[in-house]
Amino acid sequence: MERADEKLAFMLQYNNIAWYEEGAVKILDRRIYPSQVRFVTCKTYPEVIAALRDMVTQSAGPYTAAAAGMALAAYECRNEPAENQIAFLEKASNDIANARPTTARRMALITGGCLETAKKALSAGQNVPAAITEYLIAANNKRYNKVYQMAKHLVSLIPSGGAVMTQCFGETIVGQMCRVLKEQGKGDVRIFCPETRPYFQGARLTATVCRDMGMDVTVITDNMPAFVMKKERVDLFTSAADAICMDGHVVNKVGTYQIAIAAKYHGIPYYVTGAPDRVHPGIENVEIEMRDPEFTLQAMGVRTAAEGVKGYYPAFDITPPSLVSGVVTDAGIYAADQLDRYYQETDTLPFELII
Amino acid sequence: MERADEKLAFMLQYNNIAWYEEGAVKILDRRIYPSQVRFVTCKTYPEVIAALRDMVTQSAGPYTAAAAGMALAAYECRNEPAENQIAFLEKASNDIANARPTTARRMALITGGCLETAKKALSAGQNVPAAITEYLIAANNKRYNKVYQMAKHLVSLIPSGGAVMTQCFGETIVGQMCRVLKEQGKGDVRIFCPETRPYFQGARLTATVCRDMGMDVTVITDNMPAFVMKKERVDLFTSAADAICMDGHVVNKVGTYQIAIAAKYHGIPYYVTGAPDRVHPGIENVEIEMRDPEFTLQAMGVRTAAEGVKGYYPAFDITPPSLVSGVVTDAGIYAADQLDRYYQETDTLPFELII
Repeated sequence: MERADEKLAFMLQYNNIAWYEEGAVKILDRRIYPSQVRFVTCKTYPEVIAALRDMVTQSAGPYTAAAAGMALAAYECRNEPAENQIAFLEKASNDIANARPTTARRMALITGGCLETAKKALSAGQNVPAAITEYLIAANNKRYNKVYQMAKHLVSLIPSGGAVMTQCFGETIVGQMCRVLKEQGKGDVRIFCPETRPYFQGARLTATVCRDMGMDVTVITDNMPAFVMKKERVDLFTSAADAICMDGHVVNKVGTYQIAIAAKYHGIPYYVTGAPDRVHPGIENVEIEMRDPEFTLQAMGVRTAAEGVKGYYPAFDITPPSLVSGVVTDAGIYAADQLDRYYQETDTLPFELII
Repeated sequence: MERADEKLAFMLQYNNIAWYEEGAVKILDRRIYPSQVRFVTCKTYPEVIAALRDMVTQSAGPYTAAAAGMALAAYECRNEPAENQIAFLEKASNDIANARPTTARRMALITGGCLETAKKALSAGQNVPAAITEYLIAANNKRYNKVYQMAKHLVSLIPSGGAVMTQCFGETIVGQMCRVLKEQGKGDVRIFCPETRPYFQGARLTATVCRDMGMDVTVITDNMPAFVMKKERVDLFTSAADAICMDGHVVNKVGTYQIAIAAKYHGIPYYVTGAPDRVHPGIENVEIEMRDPEFTLQAMGVRTAAEGVKGYYPAFDITPPSLVSGVVTDAGIYAADQLDRYYQETDTLPFELII
């Protein structure tokens, strides 16, 4: 992760992508990827917050960008006395964590971890941005390994010659699923990706990763999942999650709930990948982010509806445990009503949970 | 319907639109409406067929365009001997009816009606294009009146202050539903229109008609119906249909099936408007049109997915009678398993069924 070409290789393999470099955070602009490969450069941590709010990156990208933003904040205050640096980083940690309301609790675990790392580095007289970057890379590596384990459990549910339906962009898990499918001689599995309006993450990101991994991948519009379940053989519906509550509720990109209902109707199991979130014991304290309604009235920048028509844009929806066949974690597959067992059986740390 | 401004008024009221004028058929180009109001002009009936295949008009538009195409065919062969005219019109009737496979049987009723009208006009020495146009206008007027009756039955199911979800573009019934809502003091009903990818008929056409009729209308993306059913009050899901089989199966724009499943899950009734189709006794003989898969890989003309990713484009899907709460006809509301009663109780002619 030290050199630019290694970073690019890393990025292309995992499609994950934000990092800290001396005085700057660079973030792959997923709003235009894959038609263009461009990076947003942030010179201050508030610019990182603005990038998060502007959806420059999604899925797991924001967490990496947030940690890189903490390294940048440490760089910004590097010439201050230690106690001022700590105050500055405490504010940065809080500001970055609250960039987007839905993920604030999880984001606070990451920025909080960076803050602790910074405090230790300061008292040990080490370079703080470097220490935070090291923390980020170590956590990411551990995370990738956990996602690989998770992919092995997920692929055990998929028959050779079968088909999988995805939703939105599952980040690292999508690439790792493809990798394990190939490793296990299931490279003939077909993947159906709903396009995921209004941002088209399914069409733009998920399908591209599957293609890059050499899989047979088909993009469908968001009104087609039930038709595809009825007409084509679909063995499994899977998605990652923005949050998996300890009570089994899944918070994920809007549309997940609807596909899970269709899957239930067709007797197709829905497996969510990730780890249960102890910061979300139940669904009650999850705030669903309502975004700019005007955004649903355009597609790829072209206006669709006439003036005077309203838009509506919930970023996420909630799938109840009754529609969830299981939670696929690095440690195995758990029933949605038995998620406490995950923490009894693993030593997973907060930052490693985020795929 | 004789003068251009009357035609325009007619068009704006019903958003329905194709007509015959001396030597030409003009069709409102719904691919670009409402951002632009432009008409495709056809000088020969094969150009009408090409326009139908190119989706210049949808919903009920093709039926009016087909009849206008028959008037144009009669104009094309007007200087031939009568028996050659009949042969020419028989070929035109068959060609136009088969412009699109899914609607071929219904279309044949219209072009066949025009053919019979032409034969009578020929033997009576009348102007054939004028006779076909008269037949078309009379049938359309009778149809609009039937749709108004249908709208009254539909609106009887919608409470004041409630909300309705639509799917795709229901043509005349959408405008008539709004008209009756207002007449009955239910102008406060909210309408949610899924955008209907990949052509955006919901965003572009349905929402525009509702807005023009002064209703509160919200466009949502096709992955949001279940969320809206859960979070907002939705009293009823309704759609028109490309075909309602006598056994209660509904063939309509892809996505209808998925929304009907979501409606069932939430205990929200789904009412389809139209009339059962005696040309379709069961679902077995309905062919689902698969269109150019590449079309799902773009939105409003902008490419969404990377090269090497497959598309998939079923134009319609099938909703089984178990998901249909009732069929709302001009004569009343029928259970999906009692559609024979409609023909026992009405004297509806084939052409009048098409909304």
